[in-house]
Amino acid sequence: MTSRTRFLAAVARQPVDRTPIWVMRQAGRYLPEYRELKAKHDFLTMVRTPELATEVTLQPLRRFDLDAAILFSDILVIPEALGQGYRFREQGGIGMEWAITSASDIDRLDATRVREKLAYVPAALRLIRKELADTKALLGFAGSPWTLAAYMVDGGSSDDFPKLKALARTEPAAFEKLMEKLSDAVAEYLNMQIEAGADAVQLFDSWAALCQGVEYERNSLRWMRRIIAKLPKNFPVIVYAKGMAHHAPAIADAGAAVIGVDWTYSLAQVRSLTGGRVALQGNLDPQVMTTTPDLVRAAARAVLADNAGASGHIFNLGHGITPDAKIECMAALVDTVHGFVP
Amino acid sequence: MTSRTRFLAAVARQPVDRTPIWVMRQAGRYLPEYRELKAKHDFLTMVRTPELATEVTLQPLRRFDLDAAILFSDILVIPEALGQGYRFREQGGIGMEWAITSASDIDRLDATRVREKLAYVPAALRLIRKELADTKALLGFAGSPWTLAAYMVDGGSSDDFPKLKALARTEPAAFEKLMEKLSDAVAEYLNMQIEAGADAVQLFDSWAALCQGVEYERNSLRWMRRIIAKLPKNFPVIVYAKGMAHHAPAIADAGAAVIGVDWTYSLAQVRSLTGGRVALQGNLDPQVMTTTPDLVRAAARAVLADNAGASGHIFNLGHGITPDAKIECMAALVDTVHGFVP
Repeated sequence: MTSRTRFLAAVARQPVDRTPIWVMRQAGRYLPEYRELKAKHDFLTMVRTPELATEVTLQPLRRFDLDAAILFSDILVIPEALGQGYRFREQGGIGMEWAITSASDIDRLDATRVREKLAYVPAALRLIRKELADTKALLGFAGSPWTLAAYMVDGGSSDDFPKLKALARTEPAAFEKLMEKLSDAVAEYLNMQIEAGADAVQLFDSWAALCQGVEYERNSLRWMRRIIAKLPKNFPVIVYAKGMAHHAPAIADAGAAVIGVDWTYSLAQVRSLTGGRVALQGNLDPQVMTTTPDLVRAAARAVLADNAGASGHIFNLGHGITPDAKIECMAALVDTVHGFVP
Repeated sequence: MTSRTRFLAAVARQPVDRTPIWVMRQAGRYLPEYRELKAKHDFLTMVRTPELATEVTLQPLRRFDLDAAILFSDILVIPEALGQGYRFREQGGIGMEWAITSASDIDRLDATRVREKLAYVPAALRLIRKELADTKALLGFAGSPWTLAAYMVDGGSSDDFPKLKALARTEPAAFEKLMEKLSDAVAEYLNMQIEAGADAVQLFDSWAALCQGVEYERNSLRWMRRIIAKLPKNFPVIVYAKGMAHHAPAIADAGAAVIGVDWTYSLAQVRSLTGGRVALQGNLDPQVMTTTPDLVRAAARAVLADNAGASGHIFNLGHGITPDAKIECMAALVDTVHGFVP
């Protein structure tokens, strides 16, 4: 099998010769070659320049035998394309240029120019696909409407996004209007990525756990379902809803082919919830990657054992790899996973 | 039924006339009378002075018909009693006087004086019990060893407590030594509270979700089991493991009579995991308490409906009530829950 056929077989819960692996934020700050490039170009320039985004996307695949490349980009390119720009705050975190505080702010968001404003993304994907040919799987991604709205309504990074929660509860009509606009923009954006050669796309519902359990459908899942319905039939979508894998049956019903699982779950636990009707992706604690190769091997084997040889497993961390992760830990991880026969 | 018999019946999953309710951090900053007292005495003085702790504990019960009082105290009195003091940092959060960085630091912790150093706690509980007589349930509490260790090893508040994770992974012998010491101190502390009249105790495993799912037993649950085994047989213990209610079956096996559920779950979901062999406590999103009485009533009814009339439900928020919660929302919450017949 090639990496690409292995990845797609795991997505479809078909037999694989070995468990495929990729790592969230695999193109990132733990790589010296990334830091070198970042010293010359700022983050948003790298995101917006197809040649640079391609280079960064491919960097981890040159070092490690990963099965998938994921586009180097950022979830907040969507609000920016709608007219709400952002920057990285000096003290850390994200600051939006302005915050949505009223229904008229939602009207200000212009959803008509997504294709034009984000044309650099399919351009990068085409370059990456050309480099990879069909050996590796190529992944696109977007933020979920709920997670994007968190930054857009609270005006940037926050611990608990109280303004988004208040909007959803106290102004349901305005909230729905915003979510419709975001869902349609995200669907269009993912379709652009699919047309440009993505083999699968991941929706990052990174702030899913802000939702009351009984309101997850109304606040977030409903809008991801709407997006998935607008993609080509049976196109593989991975939904990573951090802190919410206990809603796996509902996430599967919304159309996810793969559920991204954070480190707090047992994969066997989530598999028993879903009765094997979706593939699972995850879920090693990223902190392990800052320790030693021996500890990484043991911890990776525990995750593989937890999955108990079930088909439909894509190995990943339970959250993004951190800047202090060690190169030798990443090498040990990829070797261990590829050495394991399910 | 009195509040006390109602609460204890719910713990034992026996029939109740109405669902009992208390609220995490019900004695706290959203109450003007608390803020008034806090202007005169600092937090730690209030914790350490039985008359003041009694007054703060009783304040919410004078305003609202809550079914339980919970001792006003702090989880970090345990490290302090072991010789590792703490303070509130000016920029917010907790700073420990020193951090555990070596096995010899663990040896420095003196577990022989817990009873003597924390004598103010049973003194407060006896005063509170005298005031309440047997009309209301009286709850004691402690931090779980894992959650206490987070502050003790990382030296104070943190987003992700990397030093604790590293200690647990790279120095398992030192980690176990610390956890044994903490477990035994917490067990002794809870036994003091039980002797002084507590009807139930809650273990706050607030940082449970730092754990890799497959390591939750080894890192945290094992030590709570050890504590529960040292309490009187069948004494009701509530385990609130934030972000970890998907481990409910294992938490029940560890001896919890009640599982505290955060807002991200559906109670029906957790009940189906545990097959009804434990009671559940929770799980309204605290953010609702900052909105309007009408929204609180609707959201509380959704939580009650989610529980679908099953016995063994103690209503609570899914996390502590916040300083910006409104008094009128708290009144609406208590009325709604008490107006609901399961």
